[in-house]
Amino acid sequence: MSAYVLNLWYMAAWTQEVPEGGFLVRRLLDRQWLLWREESGDWAMIEDRCPHRFVPLSRGKFADGRIACGYHGLTFDGTGSCVHNPFGGDLPPSARVASLPVVEAHGGLWFWPGEADKANPALIPDFSFIDAGAPIERAAYVMGVNYELIADNLLDLSHAEFLHVESFGTNGSLFSHGAQTVEQDASGAVWNKWDMTGAPPPGWAEAMVGPGGTVDQQLHIRWHAPASLALFIAMRRSGEAAPMVPPMANPHILTPETQRSTHYFFTHAPGAEEAAQARRVFLEEDEPMLAAQAEAMGGADFWDCKPLILASDKAAVLARRKLMQLRKAEVE
Amino acid sequence: MSAYVLNLWYMAAWTQEVPEGGFLVRRLLDRQWLLWREESGDWAMIEDRCPHRFVPLSRGKFADGRIACGYHGLTFDGTGSCVHNPFGGDLPPSARVASLPVVEAHGGLWFWPGEADKANPALIPDFSFIDAGAPIERAAYVMGVNYELIADNLLDLSHAEFLHVESFGTNGSLFSHGAQTVEQDASGAVWNKWDMTGAPPPGWAEAMVGPGGTVDQQLHIRWHAPASLALFIAMRRSGEAAPMVPPMANPHILTPETQRSTHYFFTHAPGAEEAAQARRVFLEEDEPMLAAQAEAMGGADFWDCKPLILASDKAAVLARRKLMQLRKAEVE
Amino acid sequence: MSAYVLNLWYMAAWTQEVPEGGFLVRRLLDRQWLLWREESGDWAMIEDRCPHRFVPLSRGKFADGRIACGYHGLTFDGTGSCVHNPFGGDLPPSARVASLPVVEAHGGLWFWPGEADKANPALIPDFSFIDAGAPIERAAYVMGVNYELIADNLLDLSHAEFLHVESFGTNGSLFSHGAQTVEQDASGAVWNKWDMTGAPPPGWAEAMVGPGGTVDQQLHIRWHAPASLALFIAMRRSGEAAPMVPPMANPHILTPETQRSTHYFFTHAPGAEEAAQARRVFLEEDEPMLAAQAEAMGGADFWDCKPLILASDKAAVLARRKLMQLRKAEVE
Repeated sequence: MSAYVLNLWYMAAWTQEVPEGGFLVRRLLDRQWLLWREESGDWAMIEDRCPHRFVPLSRGKFADGRIACGYHGLTFDGTGSCVHNPFGGDLPPSARVASLPVVEAHGGLWFWPGEADKANPALIPDFSFIDAGAPIERAAYVMGVNYELIADNLLDLSHAEFLHVESFGTNGSLFSHGAQTVEQDASGAVWNKWDMTGAPPPGWAEAMVGPGGTVDQQLHIRWHAPASLALFIAMRRSGEAAPMVPPMANPHILTPETQRSTHYFFTHAPGAEEAAQARRVFLEEDEPMLAAQAEAMGGADFWDCKPLILASDKAAVLARRKLMQLRKAEVE
Repeated sequence: MSAYVLNLWYMAAWTQEVPEGGFLVRRLLDRQWLLWREESGDWAMIEDRCPHRFVPLSRGKFADGRIACGYHGLTFDGTGSCVHNPFGGDLPPSARVASLPVVEAHGGLWFWPGEADKANPALIPDFSFIDAGAPIERAAYVMGVNYELIADNLLDLSHAEFLHVESFGTNGSLFSHGAQTVEQDASGAVWNKWDMTGAPPPGWAEAMVGPGGTVDQQLHIRWHAPASLALFIAMRRSGEAAPMVPPMANPHILTPETQRSTHYFFTHAPGAEEAAQARRVFLEEDEPMLAAQAEAMGGADFWDCKPLILASDKAAVLARRKLMQLRKAEVE
Repeated sequence: MSAYVLNLWYMAAWTQEVPEGGFLVRRLLDRQWLLWREESGDWAMIEDRCPHRFVPLSRGKFADGRIACGYHGLTFDGTGSCVHNPFGGDLPPSARVASLPVVEAHGGLWFWPGEADKANPALIPDFSFIDAGAPIERAAYVMGVNYELIADNLLDLSHAEFLHVESFGTNGSLFSHGAQTVEQDASGAVWNKWDMTGAPPPGWAEAMVGPGGTVDQQLHIRWHAPASLALFIAMRRSGEAAPMVPPMANPHILTPETQRSTHYFFTHAPGAEEAAQARRVFLEEDEPMLAAQAEAMGGADFWDCKPLILASDKAAVLARRKLMQLRKAEVE
C-alpha cells in the first residue's frame, strides 16, 4: 500500500521551473522524477532511475527528448521506453522507466501517480484565478514537514492571531466578531469560512474607514485532496457591497516530496518586498512551528497522538478524514 | 513499560538555572518539560507540549505563571490546567498538560515522574553536605552517554589510576595498598569504599608527610537509584586521627535526558581554574571513553554484551541489579 | 548468520600502513581491529574491544607487543590473551580478545575471519604481479559504498565508455570491435575478458600505429571471492605478437569496512600525477555514481530491486551468485 493516495492530481512544478531545452529533477511522493517539455509542446515525466543499475538518469546526458544513462549508456525517451542499447541485442519489455500523465494548467504541471486511464484533466482543481487577477509571481520552496500538517495549519486560519500577529497586524476580531462556517462543495472541496461582521478594521485600514467605522471581512480557504488549497480574502465597509480593497486569491498548493517534506507552491504580488514578506510568514513563522510539531510527534500517527479537538479544527478534521477514506478505498 | 524507573526522585536542575520571572526548558527522561517558580515560592513543572497540536509551549508567551501556546493560544497554568481558550466554548477534561511533583532540596529541584501520591520528599537522597561545607559552585552539563554507563564509571573509581592518571597524580596505591568494601545501607544506598592504608602519599602531598611517611586514604562513593551519587574523599597521616587536608564531599547526580544522554549535576570549588579542572576530567577524560564504550555497544543491552566481570565491578553490578529490580517491580 | 562470508581471505592493509613500533586501527567487516608486527616478524591482529567494558583498546597504551586498556588497565598480547590484571586475582577464560590469522603476501596483510584451522595461505589469490613488474606505489582509500556494488562496476568494464570517457579517451571500440568472454578457472576465479580486434587505436596511440592502422586490445578482469580483483590490459598492432606498450596488471582489492563502505586497495605508477589520475577515476567518476546507486537502492537487496540484466552483466552476476552460494554454505 502506498503511503499516498495515487488516483489524484498533484502539482509537480511551475512550468517556469523547467529549464529551456533541459529537464527538471524533482523528488515527488518519495520517488525522483524528470520533467521536460517535448518538441511537440507536450510534457514528459519519467522516473529518474535506470532499470539496469538504478542510478539516476539525471547523471547522464540529455538531448532531443532522450536521456542516456551515464553509467552504461541505456537511453530512454519521454514515454520511458528504451530507445538505445549500446550493446545491441534485444531487450526485455522490462527495459523501461516509469512514466506518468502530466498536464499543464494555470502555469503549473500536474501529474497523476495512479492508474493512467483515470487521469481526467477535468479533475484538476480550479486555480484559474491565478491568471485572472492582478499580475503575480509564482514561487515555490520545500518545507521540511509533512504535507498534512501544513494543510491543518492552513485550514485553521485562526492561528494568524498568534503565529502571524506581527506580520498581519490582526487584532483579535476573528474571536470577537467572527463566525465560522465549514462546507463541502460539488467539486469535493472542503471550505473553512471565517466571516467577521461589524469588526474594528485592522491597523492598516483604520484611516480608510474613519473613526468608529467597522468592516466586514471574509477569510475563506478551500481544500482539494490531497492538499491543494486556495485562500480568498475580502473586506468591505460594514453595510457596503463594494470591496474596500481588491479581493485577494492565493494558491497554497502542497505536494509531498517525502513523508517529511513538502513542495509548497504559492504566488505573491510582484516585487522583492512581497517575496520577502511571503518568505517571512512561511519560513520564519509557520515552518519553525510546524517543524517543532513534527519533532514533538516523532513520526507517530496524528490520531495516535490523541489530539485535543477544538471547534476551529472542524475543516482540518474533515479534510483528514476525506483523505483517509480515499486511501482506504485505494487499498480495497 | 517506561524505559525508566518512574517512582523515584530525579534531579531536574539547580534552582539557579531557572531564570528569574521566566522558565527553564529541559528534556528529562525523553520528554520535554517547563520549570518555573510560582509567586507562592513553590515550583511548577509541566510538560512542554500543547495537547491540541503537540507543539512546544515554550514557543509561546509566559507571564504571571501561565503560558499561552504560540500556535492557537490555549493557555495553561502551573498545574497543567487550561485556563484560557480563545475560541470560548467548553473544553474536555483532556485539555490539560502533564504536571509533576517537584521539590527543592540542597539547591536542586527534584521531580517524581511516577505516581504522584507516592512522592515523599523524605525519599530524596541526603545531599545536605552540599551546603554544609566550604563554599562551592554548582554546575551542570549534558554528557552524551547513557546514565548507567556513567554510574558504572563512578562506582569503580579504580579507573582513576588509568583514565585520570595525569589529572589526579595517582600512583598505583589503590592496587598496592587498597582494600575494597561494598556495602548497602538503610537508605537503600550502595557504597563502594576503597581504603588505602600505609600507602605512599600522592605527589602533591609528599612534602606534607615527609620522607618515608605514609598516609591512610579513603575513597568512598555512594549510589542511590536511579543514579544520584556522592563521592567522599579523606586522607590522614598513617596512625593519626585528624585529617591532613579537609575531607571532600561531591555530588555526582545523573539524570537521563534521553537513553543516550545525561544531565550531570556536580559542584566544584569556586574559581575558573577549578571549573576548568572539572571540565577536563569529565569532558576530556571520562566522556570520550564513555562515548567510545557506547559506540562499541551500538545500542545493545549491557548484559547482552557479555561483559567480563572483575572483583572491582561488585558495586556497579549491585547498583545495576537494584535498578533492574525496581524496573521489574513497576512492570508487575 | 554473518552478513559476510567468513571462510575466505580478505586483505586488511598494505604492510606499509602499519606504523613502525605501533599499531594500525581499522574497521573491517563491521568490527574494529588492531594490527601490529610482532618482534618475531609475524603479524598480530586482535579485536579493538576490551572484554570488560567494550571500550577500544586503541585508546590505551601499546608497548612491546602488548596493549593496556586505557579505562581499567587490563593488558592483552597479540594472541588476544590477557597478560596483566591490575587487580590481581584469577581471570576466567573469557578474559580474552578475538584474534585472527593474518599473513603477509605481496605487500598486503591478509586475514581469515572464519574457522582458524581452515586458514590455508595457499588460498590467497595470486597477486604476485604486484612485485614482478615495473615499480609501483601501493595506495588505499575508503569508498562509501557496498563492496559488491564496486565489484559489479569492475566486472563490467564497458562502463568506461560512459563514466570514464574523458579520463581514458575510449572511442567506442568496445562496442564496435569487442567480443566478451566470461570464464571460470581452477582457482575459483571469474574472468570477464573483452577483446577488441582490428579496432581503431585510442587517441593517445594513433601516432604509434600510423594512418589506417588498427590494434588488438585486451581488457581482462579477474575476480576472486569475496571481491579481490585484478585488471590486465594489453595492446598490440593488429597481426603483431609483441605488445605495443608494456602490458599492465593492477590489483583492485576490495574489503568491506561495513555493509556501506569499502577499503579499496590498488596500485599506480609512481608519481603525483599518476596518484591524481587514479584519484580522479575512482573518487570523482566511479564513487559518485556508485553512491547514487546505493542511495537509489536505499538499503534494499540488489535482487529485490529487480535489475534489468544485460549480456554484459554475465560475469558480475556469476560472481554475485558464487558469493551467495558461499554464504548459504556457511549457514548450513
